[in-house]
Amino acid sequence: MSDALFLAVDLDTGQTKPLFQQLYEAISQHIRAGRIGAGTRLPASRAYAAEIGVSRATVLAAYDQLIAEGYAVSRQGAGVFASDIGTVAAGWIAPKTVRPVPVPDRSGPRPFHPGVPDMRAFPHRLWAQYVGRVARSETGGWMQGAEPFGDPVLCGAIADHLRDWRGVDVSPEQVVITAGAGDAMELILQTVAPDGAPVALENPGYPVLVQACKTLGNPRHWLAVDDAGACLPDHPVAVSVITPSCQFPRGMTMPVARRQAHLAGAGWIVEDDYDSEFRYSGTPVPALMALDRAQKVIYLGSFSKVFSSGLRLGYLVFPDRLLDRVHAVLRARGSRASVMPQRVLGRFMEDGAFHRHVRKMRRLYRGRRQVFLDGLAARFGAGLRYRDYGAGMSVVLEFAQRVDEPGLRSRMQGAGLSCPMLSDYYFDGGAQQGMLCGFCAFDEAEINDGLGRLETVLMPFLDLTTAKA
Amino acid sequence: MSDALFLAVDLDTGQTKPLFQQLYEAISQHIRAGRIGAGTRLPASRAYAAEIGVSRATVLAAYDQLIAEGYAVSRQGAGVFASDIGTVAAGWIAPKTVRPVPVPDRSGPRPFHPGVPDMRAFPHRLWAQYVGRVARSETGGWMQGAEPFGDPVLCGAIADHLRDWRGVDVSPEQVVITAGAGDAMELILQTVAPDGAPVALENPGYPVLVQACKTLGNPRHWLAVDDAGACLPDHPVAVSVITPSCQFPRGMTMPVARRQAHLAGAGWIVEDDYDSEFRYSGTPVPALMALDRAQKVIYLGSFSKVFSSGLRLGYLVFPDRLLDRVHAVLRARGSRASVMPQRVLGRFMEDGAFHRHVRKMRRLYRGRRQVFLDGLAARFGAGLRYRDYGAGMSVVLEFAQRVDEPGLRSRMQGAGLSCPMLSDYYFDGGAQQGMLCGFCAFDEAEINDGLGRLETVLMPFLDLTTAKA
Repeated sequence: MSDALFLAVDLDTGQTKPLFQQLYEAISQHIRAGRIGAGTRLPASRAYAAEIGVSRATVLAAYDQLIAEGYAVSRQGAGVFASDIGTVAAGWIAPKTVRPVPVPDRSGPRPFHPGVPDMRAFPHRLWAQYVGRVARSETGGWMQGAEPFGDPVLCGAIADHLRDWRGVDVSPEQVVITAGAGDAMELILQTVAPDGAPVALENPGYPVLVQACKTLGNPRHWLAVDDAGACLPDHPVAVSVITPSCQFPRGMTMPVARRQAHLAGAGWIVEDDYDSEFRYSGTPVPALMALDRAQKVIYLGSFSKVFSSGLRLGYLVFPDRLLDRVHAVLRARGSRASVMPQRVLGRFMEDGAFHRHVRKMRRLYRGRRQVFLDGLAARFGAGLRYRDYGAGMSVVLEFAQRVDEPGLRSRMQGAGLSCPMLSDYYFDGGAQQGMLCGFCAFDEAEINDGLGRLETVLMPFLDLTTAKA
Repeated sequence: MSDALFLAVDLDTGQTKPLFQQLYEAISQHIRAGRIGAGTRLPASRAYAAEIGVSRATVLAAYDQLIAEGYAVSRQGAGVFASDIGTVAAGWIAPKTVRPVPVPDRSGPRPFHPGVPDMRAFPHRLWAQYVGRVARSETGGWMQGAEPFGDPVLCGAIADHLRDWRGVDVSPEQVVITAGAGDAMELILQTVAPDGAPVALENPGYPVLVQACKTLGNPRHWLAVDDAGACLPDHPVAVSVITPSCQFPRGMTMPVARRQAHLAGAGWIVEDDYDSEFRYSGTPVPALMALDRAQKVIYLGSFSKVFSSGLRLGYLVFPDRLLDRVHAVLRARGSRASVMPQRVLGRFMEDGAFHRHVRKMRRLYRGRRQVFLDGLAARFGAGLRYRDYGAGMSVVLEFAQRVDEPGLRSRMQGAGLSCPMLSDYYFDGGAQQGMLCGFCAFDEAEINDGLGRLETVLMPFLDLTTAKA
């Protein structure tokens, strides 16, 4: 017992931290700092315990922990010795940045943020009842990762939904549940375009899908968009990703002739059917998959736009001939969709509550769309153009002339408006001028107020360009 | 009204399907089949309605739908004409395979399946109460994708957990919630190893992490595993992925000298700390991140093993200097973690219920481990070797001699046993012989019964190889 360091350990019986832990921390700190050198013999436990006034068991527990972590080694019959732990890693200790805790934005989207449902009209109480009921009746299954392809009840409800609403006859086994569109796109690429096979994507299009191709390293080709939607690929590609029901972001529905032309191509087709439930006249246009006789269409469905983005659930429907392949991929990578919300949504759909909600939202959005378009016509003249496709959750406003986009963006932000520019959805620089306005998440008063602000912000830009021209 | 086809449409007022829908379907079918050719004028609506006995509005609605989908075009003043929709895509219609609906396996894992918690000991009623309470008190937030980096309450609870259990001082803002380990690994690679930077992974190691590198196209180097855990990389790599607390699958804890050596290297370090809560003597070894003075460790945590795999939730802790980068990546790809289970788990942790459960499971597993090891010693002699590291959820049994693995696998499956071979976790072929046995998900009777079956299956293999040698 020569080393004063060992005797100077400062143990405090008043702490909730156990004494052995305090002792272990004190000694390991000395070893890390080099104050107790490699090879130093630690005091014999019995004598040490007596000297510092703790039980021998406390000292032995501290030594065991030091040995477990490699700070010390025990040599049979000779005692316990400090290890050579190497030098402390070179480097700098950054001053701990004090970051303000981000306050989550509970105020809802600002006008005219596109693609978000109005969660104020969500049936929160009914949903809570379903959540509670499922939670009480489950005895373990929903906390276990039992079904790698998705909850069977949910898959069955989705198959029914697709038959009734989208005109596609699929069986529940063709359905795979995903953690949203990005996860779904990665799963598709791993299944039909591994090893960097080229992929064609719409331009303009949905950035999340482009990002997935980028992440997985698949070369990207662009599909131009004309009045009939996505054009055919001009390169041989393994997969084309298209939005036939409602082109994102422009909004047109692909006519059947163009659909047939895509189906006659060589590659796989991903049909991204993100908000086709919202068609405001007639019935929803059947899915492209309904015309697919060659089993080449993979259907990508989402709940983020028609139901809730917080669930982070989406789904894929694979043709029968791809099922073995996708199952192998899923077994290797694991599913990323939480089982818990799947169970609840499956029961919610099965009972018809989902469809009642979607129908209610469609009525609500139809009215809001009319308010938005009427207000637009009343406030803006020939400076703005838009096309009415009678579907979707947003409208593209085209500027008749070139507009200073950075200036417009900053003025819009200042006015509390949130409309992305059309150029945000172009991936090759050659964007048309315009912006995307969503009308779904705002009531009549909010729409009219937002349009007033939009007029104030936008008019000088339109006038200016007109004057210049 | 010359064309008999139009007059022969078969409308049924007894159906729930609206008449306009029936009419639209009949005509579109004729157009698709080529029976109504491109350019054919559709009958004038008023006369047609009278002939087939429906209202004119019905005919107009059907025509609108045909026009919306591109089956027909309207020419001002001239009428409505069938479009040229191209030829039907060449291809084959596969006979619809009748797949049996897979019956989800509710029987629980078979002995000695590793890495799964015993969900029979899960506090289902208490969890259901939390689920119900959170569902009732939420008025929208949890159905909205408001927090891309994770629920703030859950992030705070995780920071507290890491301080109390893992000796790491982090702030809630450093925590990012993920949809499990595969998702987490992809997020890490996109943040610190984009553009195919090389990654070092333990061999043997965890296949899900290897798969993520493969998916993203990062070249892989192998870290050999010796008695001190993962060795240092022998190539320059951007990232090393290691399991210092409990090497997977071998089980040893990395001593502090090896930890310092890893920290002194050039690249980023991913500390995969998947089940460190389960240490059966002393206190958990502090995380490697606790020694990290250079802000180079990214901590990867999981709930799948200590709590529930069905939640599909995990988390990452990034050093401060990486936060801006990881936030940018998350904004581009979107979060994949469902908000709903995050909210519940956050409250469950905050109230201490999570730690009570983990402590209870640790006691339970400690006892089961002893039963397993005692039974092993009683039944097997020198034919089997294992090392006792006093931690984790499984034990590696090493065969003293070469064993016919395919034969052993099939016999084990026949006996209702589920033990992966050590070779399943080696990625370069050079595997040691042995198998991985989990002891957590089985009670005493199941362990003893399983060991009896294991003895019956394994003995002939061990004897045979002994006889051959």
